[in-house]
Amino acid sequence: MQPGTLPCPLRGIIPPMVTPLVARDELDHAGLERLVEHVLAGGVHGLFLLGTTGEGPSLGYRLRCELIERVCRQVEGRVPVLVGVTDTAFTESVTLAEHAADEGAAAVVLSAPYYFPAGQPELAEYVESIVPELPLPVFLYNMPSHTKLTFEPDTLRRAIALPGVVGMKDSSGDMDYFRRVAALLKGRPDFSLLMGPEAMLADAMRLGAHGGVCGGANLVPGLFVELHEALCQNDARRIEPLQAKVVQLGAALYTIGQYGSSIIKGLKCALSCLGICNDLPAEPFRPFGQEKREQVRRVLRELDIATLIGRPS
Amino acid sequence: MQPGTLPCPLRGIIPPMVTPLVARDELDHAGLERLVEHVLAGGVHGLFLLGTTGEGPSLGYRLRCELIERVCRQVEGRVPVLVGVTDTAFTESVTLAEHAADEGAAAVVLSAPYYFPAGQPELAEYVESIVPELPLPVFLYNMPSHTKLTFEPDTLRRAIALPGVVGMKDSSGDMDYFRRVAALLKGRPDFSLLMGPEAMLADAMRLGAHGGVCGGANLVPGLFVELHEALCQNDARRIEPLQAKVVQLGAALYTIGQYGSSIIKGLKCALSCLGICNDLPAEPFRPFGQEKREQVRRVLRELDIATLIGRPS
Amino acid sequence: MQPGTLPCPLRGIIPPMVTPLVARDELDHAGLERLVEHVLAGGVHGLFLLGTTGEGPSLGYRLRCELIERVCRQVEGRVPVLVGVTDTAFTESVTLAEHAADEGAAAVVLSAPYYFPAGQPELAEYVESIVPELPLPVFLYNMPSHTKLTFEPDTLRRAIALPGVVGMKDSSGDMDYFRRVAALLKGRPDFSLLMGPEAMLADAMRLGAHGGVCGGANLVPGLFVELHEALCQNDARRIEPLQAKVVQLGAALYTIGQYGSSIIKGLKCALSCLGICNDLPAEPFRPFGQEKREQVRRVLRELDIATLIGRPS
Amino acid sequence: MQPGTLPCPLRGIIPPMVTPLVARDELDHAGLERLVEHVLAGGVHGLFLLGTTGEGPSLGYRLRCELIERVCRQVEGRVPVLVGVTDTAFTESVTLAEHAADEGAAAVVLSAPYYFPAGQPELAEYVESIVPELPLPVFLYNMPSHTKLTFEPDTLRRAIALPGVVGMKDSSGDMDYFRRVAALLKGRPDFSLLMGPEAMLADAMRLGAHGGVCGGANLVPGLFVELHEALCQNDARRIEPLQAKVVQLGAALYTIGQYGSSIIKGLKCALSCLGICNDLPAEPFRPFGQEKREQVRRVLRELDIATLIGRPS
Repeated sequence: MQPGTLPCPLRGIIPPMVTPLVARDELDHAGLERLVEHVLAGGVHGLFLLGTTGEGPSLGYRLRCELIERVCRQVEGRVPVLVGVTDTAFTESVTLAEHAADEGAAAVVLSAPYYFPAGQPELAEYVESIVPELPLPVFLYNMPSHTKLTFEPDTLRRAIALPGVVGMKDSSGDMDYFRRVAALLKGRPDFSLLMGPEAMLADAMRLGAHGGVCGGANLVPGLFVELHEALCQNDARRIEPLQAKVVQLGAALYTIGQYGSSIIKGLKCALSCLGICNDLPAEPFRPFGQEKREQVRRVLRELDIATLIGRPS
Repeated sequence: MQPGTLPCPLRGIIPPMVTPLVARDELDHAGLERLVEHVLAGGVHGLFLLGTTGEGPSLGYRLRCELIERVCRQVEGRVPVLVGVTDTAFTESVTLAEHAADEGAAAVVLSAPYYFPAGQPELAEYVESIVPELPLPVFLYNMPSHTKLTFEPDTLRRAIALPGVVGMKDSSGDMDYFRRVAALLKGRPDFSLLMGPEAMLADAMRLGAHGGVCGGANLVPGLFVELHEALCQNDARRIEPLQAKVVQLGAALYTIGQYGSSIIKGLKCALSCLGICNDLPAEPFRPFGQEKREQVRRVLRELDIATLIGRPS
Repeated sequence: MQPGTLPCPLRGIIPPMVTPLVARDELDHAGLERLVEHVLAGGVHGLFLLGTTGEGPSLGYRLRCELIERVCRQVEGRVPVLVGVTDTAFTESVTLAEHAADEGAAAVVLSAPYYFPAGQPELAEYVESIVPELPLPVFLYNMPSHTKLTFEPDTLRRAIALPGVVGMKDSSGDMDYFRRVAALLKGRPDFSLLMGPEAMLADAMRLGAHGGVCGGANLVPGLFVELHEALCQNDARRIEPLQAKVVQLGAALYTIGQYGSSIIKGLKCALSCLGICNDLPAEPFRPFGQEKREQVRRVLRELDIATLIGRPS
Repeated sequence: MQPGTLPCPLRGIIPPMVTPLVARDELDHAGLERLVEHVLAGGVHGLFLLGTTGEGPSLGYRLRCELIERVCRQVEGRVPVLVGVTDTAFTESVTLAEHAADEGAAAVVLSAPYYFPAGQPELAEYVESIVPELPLPVFLYNMPSHTKLTFEPDTLRRAIALPGVVGMKDSSGDMDYFRRVAALLKGRPDFSLLMGPEAMLADAMRLGAHGGVCGGANLVPGLFVELHEALCQNDARRIEPLQAKVVQLGAALYTIGQYGSSIIKGLKCALSCLGICNDLPAEPFRPFGQEKREQVRRVLRELDIATLIGRPS
């Protein structure tokens, strides 16, 4: 495989990488290096930078560019790097995509512009306008809880017909919606369908998805890689205990904080407890205090986390 | 087990029974009888009448009372019968609960009053006011997509402390919420936690749920009963293929219609294709037309539905 | 004018009457009588029973019927009585409408069934099914905050084409929506367009509305009747100070409580302070406590409420 | 008044200026100059750049900076210039605010970061973190339809206690909310309370607001300035016909397009018909087609728009 080459369709586990920070607007360089090696060692099939878990929209552009550059250089084509370029400003999305292409990223990920609540025809026209301007293959990203806009089936039909659109990630958390999308994509074996919420990876693959963009794979990449393999092989005996572990991880770790930020804060705190990277989130979020940090530590012990991290042998 | 006796906690598969109609405000008597025997033959652990899938709020009170009476008499205590009494009018809920008690139902199911958007303290006070007036044990029912109100953790804490509140069904479809509820209920082994959306049954049981109120169990009760058993026994080899079938059923059947009504209409149409009962939904819904009915027939053939219906041996 | 005759179009102020209660499921008979005379003395052009302000959906059916009967008999055709028949159950709406017709009501008011989130075609079909079954002229009622459903322009176009649909009340509080509705109704001078939120009455009439269903007219009917007259006469010097009083009333009275119930509770409490009727709301709401009741008293004094009550001379 | 000086509290009409474009990422320089003089000639009391009507979030940063620079230089302190700095990235907000300060802007306008759905404590902490970093006085901007976050009363209380927070613009369109905010601000005569939706300006001022950020003031600044004066003088005879014109303008112009973009597209198209500036919106929106443009022309003729533009004599 060439550096940065994108399989068609992309399959597997592509962690939405958290962005390690030491201070506002300042990357945790050493932590970032360790994190990249940590997830690659788990056998993941790609990296997704600057997504929701990566707090992309909360980061300044200079830092986003620095992150792309550092990660692409470190990865050196071992897996494809996908870069989130969703923005409210058309030109900023294009500029970021060009930067990603220059640094050797394999694809970009694009959601709806998230300030103005657009109508579906406006969303479809937007995608039709911007995709030809993007220098890399495009994954659509359905994330209505944050963008206020769903890619409705008719819009999706128009979007996936565009040359350059090679996949879709659905983070709606809505199985009814995902079923319809999977049905709509049945005739497109070359098109990569990826699930966002990690607890839904198994069901998504039963519906035809090719893999998942699992936040938890930042922490325990091997667990998700193994689950993906077991699902590909339809190996019932392995699927069940692995899925149980995925569910336990979420139950234990993601309920420590409150609000929508509990997943990101829980993951960053856990990575920090493991000595991998700093736990500082970008504003408007703040790191867990001491009490919650203790809870995270306890969870890591109880789940025997070390056994879940590595690549399946 | 005595007629109508309620296990503590209630475990297993409790289908939210569809309500067979021959015309507006007129039960399909023969269909209803067949449907009850159909699901009981599948080995279910209870029946839930007048829920969302049962179109309870769309039915007139006379018909609701007739349904309770007929089903309770037919079931004759073989399994506990739960009756939905959610209403916007306090007194109508109480009257319906009294009727259910008179007919031998085992419990009632109560969601938030669904017209006025109440605040959480108002919801908590409402539950505290009505529970003592209800002559049967109460299951709370979290259904924010229809009631506009979630039982937030603090409200739930107050509600589950009431004598008489013995269980909860969550139909939010939100795994983050369910995780928090499961955590909150850890110290209550007597309290029954049930999952609504059927594709989430397995993950819910991994989080401590006792069973599911699975719409699909109207059609293929044995499939869900078997999955429940496999989950109780933690039998990985059986769980996986059964869960795969649950997912396939949803993907094939529930995507035929549009809007929120597609599950109810799909189930009623499938039951009608199997000769069990009529497919007429209550207003504001209408039955599938000929073309969609053909799609349902095809799905039933492809899923080899007959093999999924019966009680696991 | 004949008893109960409905002008075409209906114009003026039609208070959405609060429902005086002495206990759960028990009308405040004397208070109800005083309230009816109070608002009629203010010169209102109709009465709307069992709307949102009337807590219709929170009341048992027996009480709803008793209310209709008592008010129709007391009013004796002095003004048309409109009755809210919105329900989640088709047959209950029809039964209530028949009762209203028997008692001499002039029209019924119908919103979307408010449990199942229907699609727009389903809503349109529902209206087309039920209107022919209703024995009285029908006002549509747009109330998306409570029903989860807006009458979108295409649905509205179908609905207003039905014989029997004579008017519409919009309580969306969304001026953009109201503008579109007003534009859509331009060619229908016989069709009555009424505004819900009282602060928007003046702007609504500037856009072509015929009047308002003003909650505050329970308390100070004369103020709204006078404002309506001034708007009809385009009498700038009178409009301005009257509108200012309407705004002050809302600012002072409706901000005392919290949540969506603050308007109903504020109105009932104020009527109780004036000795007109009891302040008990129906569940899930509770009356104001002593402290808030004192605030209401203060507001009534400061607004010099007595001067706003009566009919303009 | 010194260049850029900010009255305390700021009163009057502060148009949220549309951003004239000739192409994607390219200002319409001549149109921008004409537009600035057009609104200043109408007697407005400030200019608000890069708000929602100004499509701020849809514009690239380079262009935003160029716009600030050009407008500040052209205005030369004739009125205070307010600059929208709302962003999902903390550092981009600060950088833009610094640029605005360097160019002589008088204040910045800050809403919630609009990608992540934060909790209220997170929003309050965000505001407390960023305000001290901003080199100019700050107006808070409540815009929940676009940011998914309301400044709830408790959050607002914390925010307005910060040194540097000098005003608030509410664009919720929710009169119940605005009443509560006005009540909360009663003891702060130095704090500027501004209304967003133009049809609500008059009611807002009756509740204590100091002025409005009226989109329509791009087109007919004199109309809004005159209405503001009439409201300050409580001149009933002038208020009424002016408010009627405001309502007519909205009814005629803002209903031509669909979706949330109809106001921006209507304003830009009308300004283009008047020869003031180009009508191109930023993506994801597109300009009106020929048919809608004809409708806009007709509206301008019918409203006799020329008479509404200029400064009241």
